[in-house]
Amino acid sequence: MADMKKTQCLDRIAAACILMLCFGCFHVTSLKSQLFTRLGELRYSTEPPISYKTLYFDQKIDHFGFLEDATFKQRYLVADKHWQQPDGPILFYTGNEGDITWFCNNTGFMWEGAEQLGAMLVFAEHRYYGESLPFGKDSYSDSKHLNYLTSEQALADFAVLIQNLKSTLPKAQNSPVIAIGGSYGGMLSAWFRMKYPNVVIGALASSAPIWQFTGMVPCGDFYKIITQDFAKSGYNCDANIRRSWKAINNVSSSASGLQWLSEEFSLCSPLKNKIDAVSFKSWLQETWVNLAMVDYPYEASFLQPLPRWPIQVVCKNLAFDSSVSDQQLLHGVSRAAKVYYNYTGSAPCLNTSQTATSSLGELGWMYQACTEMVMPMCTDGVQDMFEPEEWNFQAFSDECNAMFGIRPRADWAGTVYGGKKIASHSNIIFSNGGLDPWSAGGVTENITHSLVSILIPDGAHHLDLRYTNDLDPPSVRAARAAELKYFQKWIKQHHKTTGKATASKNSKKSL
Amino acid sequence: MADMKKTQCLDRIAAACILMLCFGCFHVTSLKSQLFTRLGELRYSTEPPISYKTLYFDQKIDHFGFLEDATFKQRYLVADKHWQQPDGPILFYTGNEGDITWFCNNTGFMWEGAEQLGAMLVFAEHRYYGESLPFGKDSYSDSKHLNYLTSEQALADFAVLIQNLKSTLPKAQNSPVIAIGGSYGGMLSAWFRMKYPNVVIGALASSAPIWQFTGMVPCGDFYKIITQDFAKSGYNCDANIRRSWKAINNVSSSASGLQWLSEEFSLCSPLKNKIDAVSFKSWLQETWVNLAMVDYPYEASFLQPLPRWPIQVVCKNLAFDSSVSDQQLLHGVSRAAKVYYNYTGSAPCLNTSQTATSSLGELGWMYQACTEMVMPMCTDGVQDMFEPEEWNFQAFSDECNAMFGIRPRADWAGTVYGGKKIASHSNIIFSNGGLDPWSAGGVTENITHSLVSILIPDGAHHLDLRYTNDLDPPSVRAARAAELKYFQKWIKQHHKTTGKATASKNSKKSL
Repeated sequence: MADMKKTQCLDRIAAACILMLCFGCFHVTSLKSQLFTRLGELRYSTEPPISYKTLYFDQKIDHFGFLEDATFKQRYLVADKHWQQPDGPILFYTGNEGDITWFCNNTGFMWEGAEQLGAMLVFAEHRYYGESLPFGKDSYSDSKHLNYLTSEQALADFAVLIQNLKSTLPKAQNSPVIAIGGSYGGMLSAWFRMKYPNVVIGALASSAPIWQFTGMVPCGDFYKIITQDFAKSGYNCDANIRRSWKAINNVSSSASGLQWLSEEFSLCSPLKNKIDAVSFKSWLQETWVNLAMVDYPYEASFLQPLPRWPIQVVCKNLAFDSSVSDQQLLHGVSRAAKVYYNYTGSAPCLNTSQTATSSLGELGWMYQACTEMVMPMCTDGVQDMFEPEEWNFQAFSDECNAMFGIRPRADWAGTVYGGKKIASHSNIIFSNGGLDPWSAGGVTENITHSLVSILIPDGAHHLDLRYTNDLDPPSVRAARAAELKYFQKWIKQHHKTTGKATASKNSKKSL
Repeated sequence: MADMKKTQCLDRIAAACILMLCFGCFHVTSLKSQLFTRLGELRYSTEPPISYKTLYFDQKIDHFGFLEDATFKQRYLVADKHWQQPDGPILFYTGNEGDITWFCNNTGFMWEGAEQLGAMLVFAEHRYYGESLPFGKDSYSDSKHLNYLTSEQALADFAVLIQNLKSTLPKAQNSPVIAIGGSYGGMLSAWFRMKYPNVVIGALASSAPIWQFTGMVPCGDFYKIITQDFAKSGYNCDANIRRSWKAINNVSSSASGLQWLSEEFSLCSPLKNKIDAVSFKSWLQETWVNLAMVDYPYEASFLQPLPRWPIQVVCKNLAFDSSVSDQQLLHGVSRAAKVYYNYTGSAPCLNTSQTATSSLGELGWMYQACTEMVMPMCTDGVQDMFEPEEWNFQAFSDECNAMFGIRPRADWAGTVYGGKKIASHSNIIFSNGGLDPWSAGGVTENITHSLVSILIPDGAHHLDLRYTNDLDPPSVRAARAAELKYFQKWIKQHHKTTGKATASKNSKKSL
């Protein structure tokens, strides 16, 4: 039983990892065939695929101490094709927990905005991810080497990089910089503006759950939103997922049931015991979570390709009445899961130990979740469709200690980043999708006239940051237009304040 | 020659140390006989000497990493005699580089304001000073143990302490907190509001040279102001100090001259060679610097007692015409120096290796100057009365490396604390004295309507933070009154925002 609890707790951490990690991993099928919309005006792109320079900057490993004076190579990508010199704006992507090229390729909003704003694009990789490893292959070797993996260090990297770019790039000295990020990257964007308003004039924090911390929002809201997504996407869809857990418990209580389940779900590794069944349920839960995040209005490709509005397709397999048998129900669940894992029909079997990626990113986020990014989550099985599980900080802390030899500090993020008391800051846009479970921890109401919320009712996770698509709902088009208007306002204000408006001619184009 | 250069460079670091360290060390002769002024109305106090509780809080040694999870005891002092419960304000002194009881005893402004505002007073000791030693007696043993001595860690200490006080003290949950500090403590106050506006509603940064960093202000302004203080305090006073350096060079070029100088200045350790003469000049230079800082309008006691307007008294000994001989001039300089070192006539001899204090504080500030707090200083001998010396960062860095095994990062303070780009912040009062050399690096003009400058033309170093005195010039009385008005405005705004004004009744008294 102790082992099972442990597994559950680890899974909860892993789920958070995968969730956050997924934020930037969605790929459109082909950049060449990508539909471009320039600020509301639909057009087919004749432009070549995006092109950027890959550069490296020597960053201090430790910005907050002087004993460790060594540096590492931080990767960053620069695209200046549309940059208006001198003093044209810089859109700066505050990289999250993954390879920066993913974010670069999946943040079409920036590529589409560059021409309109006459902006240079910079995508900065977050330390400990992608190629930006402070200690090379030893970066993850132990807690000593992991000690510099914090959001504060990452923000300092961004600040130092920008200061350096502005002082060394010709004609960039007076360029206003706007931070942009999605998910954890969005949290970083918001925090970046809060902590370094001298470096960035404003920030777009897309789908950034800056309040998903202890005591700020109810721990169950995240899973409630997922449940709502399924509830409205098909007849009895949430109810049948809620029933499926008990059905799995029933069926998996016998050896033959385990075998049946393994075959029904085409599992690569057959379930052998109760612990396997618990892992199996966690894997399914993650599947529904991931689907809620990527419930986009058009075909898109994640690690697996997905259809348009994938939850609707999933739910077609779950439209049972309550009279259905356990095995009939689980047959539906199996078909539903295969929408996610085998939409193309090419997967030979399903792997329950599969996570979003096998890259270092997952472990990195796990460390961050175990230190600063403590995001309480819970389920009650009533207001959500999952098995009830309370948030247990002590168990979580013990797991972190066992895994990394460190303990999380649950209150720190609230103290250092302000929690709900952020009204004195300025120039931050918080955009959130109504379908996105992470909106539970997001800022979804205006705080002041310059700390504003943009809601995208039909949007999943940071839909606004993706390339435009002719199937985009009007709400996301409006969101992007509003975001660009704020950018222009900030840029204009910057040039007014500094008395240099030479490069703003392009940004005066009407949106 | 190499050695001499080294000595000069070290002296320059030491000078900065002493200067910053002195900020809180001025004592009034007796608290019992202290004149109190309650908000402009002069009265003799019938109150007993100040009384406070001494408490200790377990702080993380490292707020920015999770490997080092140990804690240390941070000392803080609490006085709640006048505190209006619930929700009365808290005036929070952001301790600087010394024993917190010094600052507590020398910040009469807070004690006098507590009753008027119904405020609790908290004085928090800065880590690595006084009793707040992260590694006890080993705290200064090497650069490994010194690694957590940074302003960022100190600010995090303050934030965590306040969050803890507010969540554990009954009826303090909604108490607005105002940061107050002088000199480096004032810099911390300003930065605290910038970085943690969720924790403090505003800050009074008295004599805080937040711009005394690379590229922000001319490196020579500090010494220019000192020169001006002497120039206006007596006939030919600055000119004769300027001439004294060459006179010392002339006289010290022979063994008999060195002996004459040693006797004339009643030195405890006679000068033996050229290197000693260089140190002797540095010591004199520090003397003039210190005098400019403590040029108060009433008798006050520093490490040595001083007369009212001490520079005027000093200058009476230096009112020579240009025809005076080297030895006559130096006889005057000797008498001038003795105003500072032997006003009471009880010093048997003068010690040229004397520094402001022999406490750990000096070494701590030296470390901070060698890491983050890199404050370029220079003299040209034309616009100031000192021997010309350029700012040589490389030499400075080499000295720091030799001393601590670390290198300063000259640009970091500007990046992390915003430099001149701080207009987006709010609710900070920067007060500066016109006589204070540190005003050279201070904010002496309003930046916005809520980032305001208060000038005290007749004030030396953070005169406004001292107890009222019947010899106070009107400018400092006006400054204190204005500061309290801002406090009341912020407190009112806080209660308006949070909807709780129960404890503000006392703060509604007219000032």
